[in-house]
Amino acid sequence: MDKKASKKEYDLKAARLLFEEYQAKRKATKTVSLPPDTVEVDDLTRTETLNRLYEVVDSLIEMIYSTGRPTLELPSRTASNIIWDEENDLLLLGKQIIKKQFHSLASVADMTRLMKVAEVVHELLIKDKHSTLRDVFYQDVEIYGEQKNSDKCIEDIASMLYTTRNATHIIASAKGLCVGRLRIRDENNIIDLEKFGSGAWAITPMLDKVDIIESDAEFILVIEKEAAMRRISEDKFWKKYPSIILTAKGAADIATRMFLKRLNKELQLPVFSLVDSDPYGHYIHSVYLRGSKRLSYESPFLATPDIRLLGVLTKDLDAYNIPKKARLEMKPMDIKRTKELLKEDFVKKNKKWEEDLKLALKLKKKAEIQALSSHGLEFLSEEYLPEKLTTGDWI
Amino acid sequence: MDKKASKKEYDLKAARLLFEEYQAKRKATKTVSLPPDTVEVDDLTRTETLNRLYEVVDSLIEMIYSTGRPTLELPSRTASNIIWDEENDLLLLGKQIIKKQFHSLASVADMTRLMKVAEVVHELLIKDKHSTLRDVFYQDVEIYGEQKNSDKCIEDIASMLYTTRNATHIIASAKGLCVGRLRIRDENNIIDLEKFGSGAWAITPMLDKVDIIESDAEFILVIEKEAAMRRISEDKFWKKYPSIILTAKGAADIATRMFLKRLNKELQLPVFSLVDSDPYGHYIHSVYLRGSKRLSYESPFLATPDIRLLGVLTKDLDAYNIPKKARLEMKPMDIKRTKELLKEDFVKKNKKWEEDLKLALKLKKKAEIQALSSHGLEFLSEEYLPEKLTTGDWI
Repeated sequence: MDKKASKKEYDLKAARLLFEEYQAKRKATKTVSLPPDTVEVDDLTRTETLNRLYEVVDSLIEMIYSTGRPTLELPSRTASNIIWDEENDLLLLGKQIIKKQFHSLASVADMTRLMKVAEVVHELLIKDKHSTLRDVFYQDVEIYGEQKNSDKCIEDIASMLYTTRNATHIIASAKGLCVGRLRIRDENNIIDLEKFGSGAWAITPMLDKVDIIESDAEFILVIEKEAAMRRISEDKFWKKYPSIILTAKGAADIATRMFLKRLNKELQLPVFSLVDSDPYGHYIHSVYLRGSKRLSYESPFLATPDIRLLGVLTKDLDAYNIPKKARLEMKPMDIKRTKELLKEDFVKKNKKWEEDLKLALKLKKKAEIQALSSHGLEFLSEEYLPEKLTTGDWI
Repeated sequence: MDKKASKKEYDLKAARLLFEEYQAKRKATKTVSLPPDTVEVDDLTRTETLNRLYEVVDSLIEMIYSTGRPTLELPSRTASNIIWDEENDLLLLGKQIIKKQFHSLASVADMTRLMKVAEVVHELLIKDKHSTLRDVFYQDVEIYGEQKNSDKCIEDIASMLYTTRNATHIIASAKGLCVGRLRIRDENNIIDLEKFGSGAWAITPMLDKVDIIESDAEFILVIEKEAAMRRISEDKFWKKYPSIILTAKGAADIATRMFLKRLNKELQLPVFSLVDSDPYGHYIHSVYLRGSKRLSYESPFLATPDIRLLGVLTKDLDAYNIPKKARLEMKPMDIKRTKELLKEDFVKKNKKWEEDLKLALKLKKKAEIQALSSHGLEFLSEEYLPEKLTTGDWI
């Protein structure tokens, strides 16, 4: 076991400066006026969602009485109708509206399904319970036929109410873990994320139940790999360096991203990510940053646009003397994906990121977070991370 | 929303009788005498593992001084040398010993790797830290070359010390969740599994840190699917019916199985499983029951041989009026797998299980746990489970 005789002391100066900047912003408030012909999509509370649902149903009933021709109006989710105001962190929908009427057999089936989902959402909200996409499908297999039909209706209902799917209490499974300097409330229980022994808090998919109470952390660290997160957590990194540590165990799921965004926003804390030094790791970072393409409607509720890529960078492989054998050859697919990343706008506008990806293409090398273990068990939490956070060596 | 007007009351009579039987067993203790020429494999504490490691190293040093020809002796892990005494729940190793010496270049490499892993295990135990297979590999990529070499050495060290891999502090990732009437201690923290709000406790892979403190549960319910577990947990099933609820989110991982076994053994509680009504669900149940074939050496530390299959059974599809459309056609692979299950000894010796699998083959139908949602959101926790636990309708 090679041990360094002298242990360096790190003050995390760069990270601390960033933290102070964030905290200053916290005090400033501003009012935003929406552009004309747009409606804001918001993550509503249970009561608000219920009220919007009642409004829609009331107007349907009114139409039935007055004209006998009920019409459901819902905003289009095509890219041209979605405005993401990144500066103010708002999701806006334009005035393109899709009208649903009873004018054919197909449209009657469509309306019936939509009404069934509205009924399920109503039951969930009234009872304050949650369900999954699959469960909703099984609640009436006969009328949906296939799950893609109920899934689409769920999306329709969410956008019709100008809210997120989570606000309708239809949730996805959650796989994230979180530990460190944070106290939350979930229903009536106070949960202290410093009190999990060797473990961590499993992020609940029912985030509408969770309130962030308090934290004396100065930054948030998002770690791609569960093993690395457990390593850092076992070293009680967050005790020495006031922080909150989080992993989604690989690619980020909705609940983890939503929880991270809330931490970032409500606590005004800078966020750093630690991913594998390969295009998939960089892609995972980019999903935290601005969402995957598939989920564009809800991206603003899931994205943390100011997340910083702390490592592992290609340039770190030399800078931290990672042994040659712990560096892996890039495969053709890695090269292809790296080239694709270089075409993305969010990479192009970040010179340091561009440089590091170009260096990866030149060297054709990649490495896992665990490659840092070649310098010993605690190298990651006692040297690599503190050094980077002290010097501000991030992207 | 179809609602049943009258809500039945369930007393869980059958499950309670079983619970009382288990508690009576709890008081009885017995001493077991090992068969000749066998050594018991045990899940050692940190100090015990360290002491065994020192014994091995001491005897090596002695051999170097006395003969100059050190030999490492480790028990063979071939099937013929493993005795699983199911009645007394013991894993025994016979007298087949593999001797490792320095007699060729290959054996020198092998011994060097083995000594390197011994060194890592020593560091982990001394520092009371944990590592993963992958991390161990990265601690010295040069001498291992490939991860399969370090993995094999880790298995060798565990069996050389007549203990489990977990006892060497080399752990796998964990994906299980647990909630309900249970209090545990993890390091210095008391964790109350009734106090997780909408969430659940994430089973830690560092189970050597966990003590089971107390529980007033009368049974344990293992659920294949995360969504079904969250549904039942949200209904606070465990409050009304004193229980502990657990899921591995699909196929069972090592930590979840190990934790379940400890709960079953230390608390003397009956265990029921709820899986999909398909051969994969039944296979998942069988892994809890007696382990997968791959992990035969450690199976006794992971298996819960008295786990009962509560559902979803093929016969339940009619008994609980699951709509035809919520029943899925078996695919050729399902039929093949069901036939394979019927050949297994653990199925053959369980007539009810055999019957249900034969019925599945006859009807060629399968169904997911969620198919029960067709009777409403709370059908699973308010009718299906209580009814089965009251009448004793399990396999």
